[in-house]
Amino acid sequence: MSRDTRTRILVASLLLFNENGEPNTTTNDIADEVDISPGNLHYHFRKKSDLVDALLLEFQADAKRVLQPPESSQASLDDFWVFLHHLLELTASYRFLLRDMESLVVDYAKLGNALKHFARGLVASFELYLHALAAGGQIGLDSRDMRIVSRNLAVIALFSEKFDSLVDSSSTVDDSALRIAAAVLNVLRPYVTEEHSGHLAELATYYAA
Amino acid sequence: MSRDTRTRILVASLLLFNENGEPNTTTNDIADEVDISPGNLHYHFRKKSDLVDALLLEFQADAKRVLQPPESSQASLDDFWVFLHHLLELTASYRFLLRDMESLVVDYAKLGNALKHFARGLVASFELYLHALAAGGQIGLDSRDMRIVSRNLAVIALFSEKFDSLVDSSSTVDDSALRIAAAVLNVLRPYVTEEHSGHLAELATYYAA
Repeated sequence: MSRDTRTRILVASLLLFNENGEPNTTTNDIADEVDISPGNLHYHFRKKSDLVDALLLEFQADAKRVLQPPESSQASLDDFWVFLHHLLELTASYRFLLRDMESLVVDYAKLGNALKHFARGLVASFELYLHALAAGGQIGLDSRDMRIVSRNLAVIALFSEKFDSLVDSSSTVDDSALRIAAAVLNVLRPYVTEEHSGHLAELATYYAA
Repeated sequence: MSRDTRTRILVASLLLFNENGEPNTTTNDIADEVDISPGNLHYHFRKKSDLVDALLLEFQADAKRVLQPPESSQASLDDFWVFLHHLLELTASYRFLLRDMESLVVDYAKLGNALKHFARGLVASFELYLHALAAGGQIGLDSRDMRIVSRNLAVIALFSEKFDSLVDSSSTVDDSALRIAAAVLNVLRPYVTEEHSGHLAELATYYAA
């Protein structure tokens, strides 16, 4: 029973943080959302920062699962697409971390380190996928260019939603995920071999809203 | 004399904001840097927010000059390179605005709007350059893809430095500018026509630190 309440509190916190931002969410808002008393919330999490810490641990565990190297040394565009899909699910699920990173980093020391590792892991994963896609004959890309392309992919994946919210405050999360996916596939497009370009175009249509 | 002091105050503020962040800079720090009394500073700028507002006006004026459409309907890679150079000078000069945008937007209402217009103008400028580069026979890129490539270029130009400071806190501004320029040129590379690919590689060597 108590374990269940704890989970419900975390789910509600993530929801409210993502929707309204962590600074604009109080523990009372969270208790309201879960429909429990502030005292009951306090029993599970003494401070708001304990909630952020718990969510950060979940983010790190989820990120570790998403940022797995490709299963084999040769990857197909479909493998990459599945990876991209999981990545976008992850960044959308924890978007309060990415959107407000500057302000959060000031209050939560652990966050800066977690985001640093995530950003580095993201570049590394993209680079492993590029190597595997090249080995699988899906793209033609010099391995000395793979690092810089991976970095561009990581910057786009990490900051696209922020860019969207900057240029268009009415942009929704779903719009943004579609745009990020389209943007990432677009970066790959010029490198895709003739033989697979039709398939990439097909994957991209999933995201052409 | 007084006009001169005003300018010196603004230059010192920009320097300190860029180095230490706006939240970590007090008006006393600025008076110290200019070597004037706090009272003298107060005579020119009553509050720190007046300084930020004045710098924001300068940023907007500078941005307007940088984000000019290409001079002719046909642009060369050199034209693009000059544009990129001015853009990187601009984003490095006002990096406190871009690096701390979330926290600044809360305190300075005008800033959100200014950054929104800048980000939109940046996408539009990149798009105009891509059209002009294509018209000049420098790149081969479908015009329906130009919008998405421009958006990717804008995200990279705006957030690369932030990404660098996230993954490597010891990264310097100069390192970052080099990396951003290399990243932007790398996005263009696959589209550059055979005839001009040598020239792009040559431009890129300026940035291979």
